[in-house]
Amino acid sequence: MCSLNTYPSAEISQGIYSKIMKMQYLLIRKIYIGAFVILEMVYNLELRFSTGIWVFGPGVERFAPAGYKPAKDIVKLIEEASTVAGLLGLEFHYPTEVNEGNVRVVKDALSTTKLKAVAIAPVLSQEAQWARGALSALDEDTRRRAVERCKKATDIARELGAEILIIWPGREGFDFPFTTDYQKLWNNYVNSIKEVSEYAHDLKVAIEYKPEDPSSYLIHGSAGRVLATILELRQYGVRNVGINVEFAHAKLAREWVPETIVLISRYNALYHLHLNDIFTHVDLDLFPASVNLLEYLELLYWLNKVGYSGWLGLDLFPRYLNAAEMVQQSIENIKTLYAKLEKVGWSKIEEVIKKNSPIEAQKLIRELII
Amino acid sequence: MCSLNTYPSAEISQGIYSKIMKMQYLLIRKIYIGAFVILEMVYNLELRFSTGIWVFGPGVERFAPAGYKPAKDIVKLIEEASTVAGLLGLEFHYPTEVNEGNVRVVKDALSTTKLKAVAIAPVLSQEAQWARGALSALDEDTRRRAVERCKKATDIARELGAEILIIWPGREGFDFPFTTDYQKLWNNYVNSIKEVSEYAHDLKVAIEYKPEDPSSYLIHGSAGRVLATILELRQYGVRNVGINVEFAHAKLAREWVPETIVLISRYNALYHLHLNDIFTHVDLDLFPASVNLLEYLELLYWLNKVGYSGWLGLDLFPRYLNAAEMVQQSIENIKTLYAKLEKVGWSKIEEVIKKNSPIEAQKLIRELII
Amino acid sequence: MCSLNTYPSAEISQGIYSKIMKMQYLLIRKIYIGAFVILEMVYNLELRFSTGIWVFGPGVERFAPAGYKPAKDIVKLIEEASTVAGLLGLEFHYPTEVNEGNVRVVKDALSTTKLKAVAIAPVLSQEAQWARGALSALDEDTRRRAVERCKKATDIARELGAEILIIWPGREGFDFPFTTDYQKLWNNYVNSIKEVSEYAHDLKVAIEYKPEDPSSYLIHGSAGRVLATILELRQYGVRNVGINVEFAHAKLAREWVPETIVLISRYNALYHLHLNDIFTHVDLDLFPASVNLLEYLELLYWLNKVGYSGWLGLDLFPRYLNAAEMVQQSIENIKTLYAKLEKVGWSKIEEVIKKNSPIEAQKLIRELII
Amino acid sequence: MCSLNTYPSAEISQGIYSKIMKMQYLLIRKIYIGAFVILEMVYNLELRFSTGIWVFGPGVERFAPAGYKPAKDIVKLIEEASTVAGLLGLEFHYPTEVNEGNVRVVKDALSTTKLKAVAIAPVLSQEAQWARGALSALDEDTRRRAVERCKKATDIARELGAEILIIWPGREGFDFPFTTDYQKLWNNYVNSIKEVSEYAHDLKVAIEYKPEDPSSYLIHGSAGRVLATILELRQYGVRNVGINVEFAHAKLAREWVPETIVLISRYNALYHLHLNDIFTHVDLDLFPASVNLLEYLELLYWLNKVGYSGWLGLDLFPRYLNAAEMVQQSIENIKTLYAKLEKVGWSKIEEVIKKNSPIEAQKLIRELII
Repeated sequence: MCSLNTYPSAEISQGIYSKIMKMQYLLIRKIYIGAFVILEMVYNLELRFSTGIWVFGPGVERFAPAGYKPAKDIVKLIEEASTVAGLLGLEFHYPTEVNEGNVRVVKDALSTTKLKAVAIAPVLSQEAQWARGALSALDEDTRRRAVERCKKATDIARELGAEILIIWPGREGFDFPFTTDYQKLWNNYVNSIKEVSEYAHDLKVAIEYKPEDPSSYLIHGSAGRVLATILELRQYGVRNVGINVEFAHAKLAREWVPETIVLISRYNALYHLHLNDIFTHVDLDLFPASVNLLEYLELLYWLNKVGYSGWLGLDLFPRYLNAAEMVQQSIENIKTLYAKLEKVGWSKIEEVIKKNSPIEAQKLIRELII
Repeated sequence: MCSLNTYPSAEISQGIYSKIMKMQYLLIRKIYIGAFVILEMVYNLELRFSTGIWVFGPGVERFAPAGYKPAKDIVKLIEEASTVAGLLGLEFHYPTEVNEGNVRVVKDALSTTKLKAVAIAPVLSQEAQWARGALSALDEDTRRRAVERCKKATDIARELGAEILIIWPGREGFDFPFTTDYQKLWNNYVNSIKEVSEYAHDLKVAIEYKPEDPSSYLIHGSAGRVLATILELRQYGVRNVGINVEFAHAKLAREWVPETIVLISRYNALYHLHLNDIFTHVDLDLFPASVNLLEYLELLYWLNKVGYSGWLGLDLFPRYLNAAEMVQQSIENIKTLYAKLEKVGWSKIEEVIKKNSPIEAQKLIRELII
Repeated sequence: MCSLNTYPSAEISQGIYSKIMKMQYLLIRKIYIGAFVILEMVYNLELRFSTGIWVFGPGVERFAPAGYKPAKDIVKLIEEASTVAGLLGLEFHYPTEVNEGNVRVVKDALSTTKLKAVAIAPVLSQEAQWARGALSALDEDTRRRAVERCKKATDIARELGAEILIIWPGREGFDFPFTTDYQKLWNNYVNSIKEVSEYAHDLKVAIEYKPEDPSSYLIHGSAGRVLATILELRQYGVRNVGINVEFAHAKLAREWVPETIVLISRYNALYHLHLNDIFTHVDLDLFPASVNLLEYLELLYWLNKVGYSGWLGLDLFPRYLNAAEMVQQSIENIKTLYAKLEKVGWSKIEEVIKKNSPIEAQKLIRELII
Repeated sequence: MCSLNTYPSAEISQGIYSKIMKMQYLLIRKIYIGAFVILEMVYNLELRFSTGIWVFGPGVERFAPAGYKPAKDIVKLIEEASTVAGLLGLEFHYPTEVNEGNVRVVKDALSTTKLKAVAIAPVLSQEAQWARGALSALDEDTRRRAVERCKKATDIARELGAEILIIWPGREGFDFPFTTDYQKLWNNYVNSIKEVSEYAHDLKVAIEYKPEDPSSYLIHGSAGRVLATILELRQYGVRNVGINVEFAHAKLAREWVPETIVLISRYNALYHLHLNDIFTHVDLDLFPASVNLLEYLELLYWLNKVGYSGWLGLDLFPRYLNAAEMVQQSIENIKTLYAKLEKVGWSKIEEVIKKNSPIEAQKLIRELII
């Protein structure tokens, strides 16, 4: 018998899961519908914020090879992060930020600052050795090194108590026509993800898709492509692979993020979020809602609606800005939008959406920003 | 037990299928590798061209509401199509081009002109009734009408001997934020596709994805999204749903079409092709290879490599051009590129690709165009 | 001596012009800066709304060749438009909507409904005769016909008292590589614009750029390209050519519209606006601010700042929506955003912008939507 | 009296200039038109290749902060460049690659390797100090530093005999809504360009536009915007400002480069070229024609046609490739395409283009690649 979920109710079962596991977030609230006051149990999105420790780093890039700020010791970075009000968790790259040599020190610093280790992301793009691919590398030695790195990152995640392994396949693709055996590329990639996920059986493996950059073309370029891999892997019995939606990457993939969230939830695969924003087509990891304000409003509505119970990870690139200040403002932006939704009311919004009326939607939008 | 294919060998089984079913296209050829002459069985892409009968129509559009040419009787259109040398098949919309009232006449005209009916596409976008969705419509009456239309199109396909039912989900999406229940939209859409595909069990149901237009945002916007639906449907035992890759739509979805072909073949889901080209971002259905020349060269290589045995459908929008002439030139473009690949040699190209070397790829490209 | 403006002060002189011509819109307002109360004269953007009469038409398009609604008599359309509260003006195409035969009737209907004729747009794209170009046509007969049409449209504009002639160069470009003598194309186009503008010496000739569609590639594809033509024409003594910024077209050209407004004002060339919105890349003329909400907020700030004294033209494509309702909601959207800016205060916003601080901008944005 | 060129003949005068200055490239060739054989003087594009010395550098970028290769001494880099057959010139950044301290050493190395210094590009983006703008900086101290840097780069150019000063305005823009006084930004920028160009009166100041990156939005984002500035500056008597067309940047700006070349030539402003290619939207400076093959064919045709007599600069980002090899292959790609054009014949191509027929264009394209 096929043990796959029956998808049409996937979002419901996700809701039930969150109901059981996170009773502390269920609230009994009064909802006013028409003239009546009724009682209704609603899930409320818990605004648990984390950020990547890399956000506090020097910010080296092609057009700033010396970076924007001096590099600092990891403990200093954690202390800097801990100054942000409302920040509860941190994410790390392995081995550049946390590794076998400093894991104890990092653990202590997290304990001292009361920050939780949320996710570990093995470095699979940011080194010259992965220039031609890592988990999909056509060179077998390179591919083995990439798989081993993910396994070591898994060990570190266990040691720190992080529940998520983030795979960002930024080199799994190609740069030119007529250079690549696409069949072998896909086989290698899926096999690597399978091996890593089986090793990390107790973690959530969250794939962070992006259409391009640093490689010209990436095979996991959109939510749909990752979902195809996820469904394929479920056939092999691998059931701990899901998605980390990075807002700016989704925009580059021309997705409307609120809808993408729903699509991913249909398959119970929404594991993590990297929130930020994008202005044009440069992936600069700006403050969430500093550009795509309306989309963030609708996104928060749907995160609540699908019963998302994970972290709100902030993936930012401060460049010339103070990192702690940028994280702080990002949290404030999201909290403000969320408060506006709360004020207008979840069921009011739901009613308007059910009307499926562009005219009514305009009235709602005006109400949301008045 | 799960009866799904083990995907890593999917492209091989597709090759085997084509080997058994289309022995007539296997050739014994001499391949020169280094100094040796060896014998090798290769699949050769059969250049079987079809086109849509709509290509010969008036071409009404927003900025040409009166069209570019007068409308003509369907028999006249078929006769006009039959003047194109090398054209073997035709595709029709139901009910605007073929329907219960004219199916006999169409059958006779096809018989007279020795053209095969290749595919039927139910009209699910080009009428005001579908403005808010057809197979995914949130209005249940509308959705039922859309499903029924697909069933009737299936009956017509059977009567004409067409093996493919093309679903173009051009209205399955939305136009505005805060107007749409995405959960219900997806449920409705997948349920409709399931019902239609079960009814059309003896046909290939080929979904033609497109990111947008006429609706602002379409939920089947890329190959990856359709693959997710296909894999979901296979869980329900529905195994006759695949993809019609429309070249320009894939470009709008920012796909590299040769790679997409391989990805789709991985899941045995490449059912049909709509070949054309795109210049900027306007979907004008230009001559294949009139803009993206190099991509077409690599596309033809991979179609051959994955053992594609379907039709090369030409989906064009002639506007001010003579339709028959445009189809003719499109066939010539593809045949010329194919001949260049043949001349350089499939195994020579395969060798270069295996080297995974951008430098060697440049030499190959120069050889291909000298 | 060169009589061109010294550009750095262009936006100031535009302000002065509006000061003299539109004294009725100057307000004496109290501005609080720090602890001080000062008096300051400010220009306030006058919210004078117009719309295109075509908005009330059937809405024929490629994927709805029969349109969404029945066609109606021009007087009926004007009456329908007059039901929109706050709508003061109308724009017409020549000769499809207004022409020598019905100009009296239109004039009477406008008089009855107290609506002003704002702009006339000669049809230069929406007929098969312009398929290969109109004002830039390489065929000289076609080009002459296009120029003559613009002159006749000018005569109609004079008769109706419309001050603006809108040129939308939707066919001035090409569809394919290796088909076009670009030198001749540009020469023809600039010469035609020159001839038309000299004839229409008493009107503002407002060019509405768009990067593509209906032709694949348009030579007046962005604000920068039109500005180059405007500056060239000023050398020839032609000084009544400016720009009609169509919001969605500017988005397709990847412009940030508030900045583009400032650039155009630098050259005193902001003649008209077509406000609407765009969701993805399909030019569907949606409600203003229904998607790009934050950009509209900043746009209204800068329109006020540069002293724009023209019309706020609404260019919408209602499709399945009621046209009058769509125009009404569009007006409400803009008025609501404007009121929010007023509430926060122009000088407060100006101060924040002067700080050039992304951090302060986040605080402002939150204030704008609280 | 206005001393500006009368533009319609601009491309002709550019031809005349090249006729006088570069008689050595004029050829007497037989041209067959119809049944007649006539003699005609034609200009032939001289294939003079240069490249940036930065192409041989380590290649630091955001996702490769340690670079792909070790850094090397400037003399070693020049020697490496000199191994490329057919390479005649080099371009340098000031002060990172050439500066007051090493200019003698560089001059000697150029002399030894028989390479010409072609262009100097002051570093105005690649340092943290320019994070918020350089020539347009709203901070006056920063803006002064940027102007001074350009003047010093001019001095170095003079010392090396380089004729071109490249301005790449990669930080002249902004990252967020509601942060920027666009009026002041434009004023500052144009004033800076004016001051630099007056100082560099004996050089060609070539502005290299790009729509975005590293800043989110750049005000010189397209050819049209630079042309507006150029025409404005001519009013002030500044006549040595033109354009450096970077192929990939023009693609990001959604331009068809052959047409853009013609538009720029209309204003006698085509000063330099940076040739490369782009696959998706990542600006990776790939081999010219490795992706956009057909566009390169048409580009070379039009460069010849407008009488371009400048350098063919190669701006590449080798990453994991050997730099010298990448430059070499780039030269070979261009030479091969050029040879194909020569073989088919300039006047044959011109004739086809004059026919303005998409059908004939397909035949030409097939002839070009057979």
